[in-house]
Amino acid sequence: MIYAGIDLGGTFIKTGIVDPEGKILGESSIPTGAGRSFEDIAHDMVLGVMEALKKAEKDQSELTAIGVGIPGIADQNTGRIVFCPNLGWRDIPLKEEIQKYLDLPVFIDNDATVAGLAENFSGVSRSCSSSVFITLGTGVGAGIIINGKPWSGAHGVGSELGHMTLLADGVPCSCGNNGCVERYTSATALARMGRQAAMAYPDSQINSIAGSIDNIDARAVIDAAKAGDRIASRVFDRYVTYLAMTINNITAFLDPEMVVLGGGVSHAGSFLLDAIRSQLPRFLLYKGLPSPRVELAQLGNEAGMIGAAALGRVNTAS
Amino acid sequence: MIYAGIDLGGTFIKTGIVDPEGKILGESSIPTGAGRSFEDIAHDMVLGVMEALKKAEKDQSELTAIGVGIPGIADQNTGRIVFCPNLGWRDIPLKEEIQKYLDLPVFIDNDATVAGLAENFSGVSRSCSSSVFITLGTGVGAGIIINGKPWSGAHGVGSELGHMTLLADGVPCSCGNNGCVERYTSATALARMGRQAAMAYPDSQINSIAGSIDNIDARAVIDAAKAGDRIASRVFDRYVTYLAMTINNITAFLDPEMVVLGGGVSHAGSFLLDAIRSQLPRFLLYKGLPSPRVELAQLGNEAGMIGAAALGRVNTAS
Repeated sequence: MIYAGIDLGGTFIKTGIVDPEGKILGESSIPTGAGRSFEDIAHDMVLGVMEALKKAEKDQSELTAIGVGIPGIADQNTGRIVFCPNLGWRDIPLKEEIQKYLDLPVFIDNDATVAGLAENFSGVSRSCSSSVFITLGTGVGAGIIINGKPWSGAHGVGSELGHMTLLADGVPCSCGNNGCVERYTSATALARMGRQAAMAYPDSQINSIAGSIDNIDARAVIDAAKAGDRIASRVFDRYVTYLAMTINNITAFLDPEMVVLGGGVSHAGSFLLDAIRSQLPRFLLYKGLPSPRVELAQLGNEAGMIGAAALGRVNTAS
Repeated sequence: MIYAGIDLGGTFIKTGIVDPEGKILGESSIPTGAGRSFEDIAHDMVLGVMEALKKAEKDQSELTAIGVGIPGIADQNTGRIVFCPNLGWRDIPLKEEIQKYLDLPVFIDNDATVAGLAENFSGVSRSCSSSVFITLGTGVGAGIIINGKPWSGAHGVGSELGHMTLLADGVPCSCGNNGCVERYTSATALARMGRQAAMAYPDSQINSIAGSIDNIDARAVIDAAKAGDRIASRVFDRYVTYLAMTINNITAFLDPEMVVLGGGVSHAGSFLLDAIRSQLPRFLLYKGLPSPRVELAQLGNEAGMIGAAALGRVNTAS
């Protein structure tokens, strides 16, 4: 049994043929060409499956299912794309369109959910029946796994961790609310806090590492903090506090077996992980009782394809 | 098939014999006698089952399972009570103790989870495969149902909605953190906000309804707001804003089919429901897309017994 996992991004359609252990046997990459009709894009997704099958030296008849991760919201029941802002899609029958060419089960879910499923399938949380994966990138997304299956909500609008309110009346968010989680825990937020500090403290290494205020990104703050810069360390510490509060919120509400950190900021590695593990315990409600392990994601860029394939696997497993 | 549902409270052990439709066929109530040994209390729980069976005119042989709702944390796998502060219990083998007398499957979960399951079994959310039940009482608890089954976490420390951070650095909470949900959305919080307003505005009807500052409770604020008092209305409006933010957080993260409001403040009925339904839409991330329905709980005091019985049912259903 093999599965096709399609990672539909705004720039590329990446497709992997994946075995039941989560190993990619062959892959393909085709430009998305955002702005084209959904029929054209779906057709290229099918071509991508064919090309990846060829590279994997597998036949179409061996495929069990196709999974697709999209940067938007899908209706699990109908296989329609509800909303996909990057591609300008609303209410698109993607599953039906793919099935015009390939007579196979097709499953579609949000890309953060799919990345979380990938970690649960063959990454760091592979032994866990429940996990919450967090992407700390430009924004903040999440992938929720419960009883081994992805959960993106009854209406597909869940796992939007980044838009939970962490600080009522806090920093304004693009969503129209104030104080959303991603205003405090995204790479963008860390860069913003770094810029504010760098302007107030021109001697901070944040400035020398970045070269100019405009160049300050999350990485510059992390690098300066790693180098022991006092101002950068304070900024990073505050960032970690907000992230610890967010992980505590996930614990208090859902209490998964594991919380997995992915996305740009997670590349700080053990520097981030150690800081989180150090701050988190003081927020936990039941001190001394078991609580979720916090770990770094393992799969990187392949998570989209592996997770999409896993979507096919968990939904066809008997 | 019938089920015994035991609602183990700090004051009474209430037991109901419940049919597959959620109807209570017979019930019993025995003082808990908190402070006694767990063996004595477990023995009385068994006596309660016997008495309820007799009132239901049913035989022990007809029982399929026993469910227990406790004001604490249970380990679903072992049937041990991890922590139950009201009874002074830590690591208590309750399931094993009950099974010394009754050779039946025993399932134990947190009382808020059990109340949520009751609504999902035969209350307002009975047609829903997922729901989040919120108790707006002295504190704020939750019962999470996913795919028809209760979810209280991988370690049993989840569904603690009341201790999620809503306002980082906000009002100090008994848990040691600041700005927890229950500091803004419990009956206690509404009373606190009402007292503060009543002291600042002595002419408010909150004062005349309560009689004195010390007597101000959630109900006095609600009654004054219902009567059109301007100050009480502003307090209630602010309370509803925090509750709407909390429901939006539940939606953004878990997106259940329904959010059910229970506990003391929910007795405000349509006055609360209309206010929430009016404020919630402006917080939602995907405006115009489907989102959870918000409804009032239906089962009241019987929810504990019905939900505990449902615990037996969902865990033995094939």
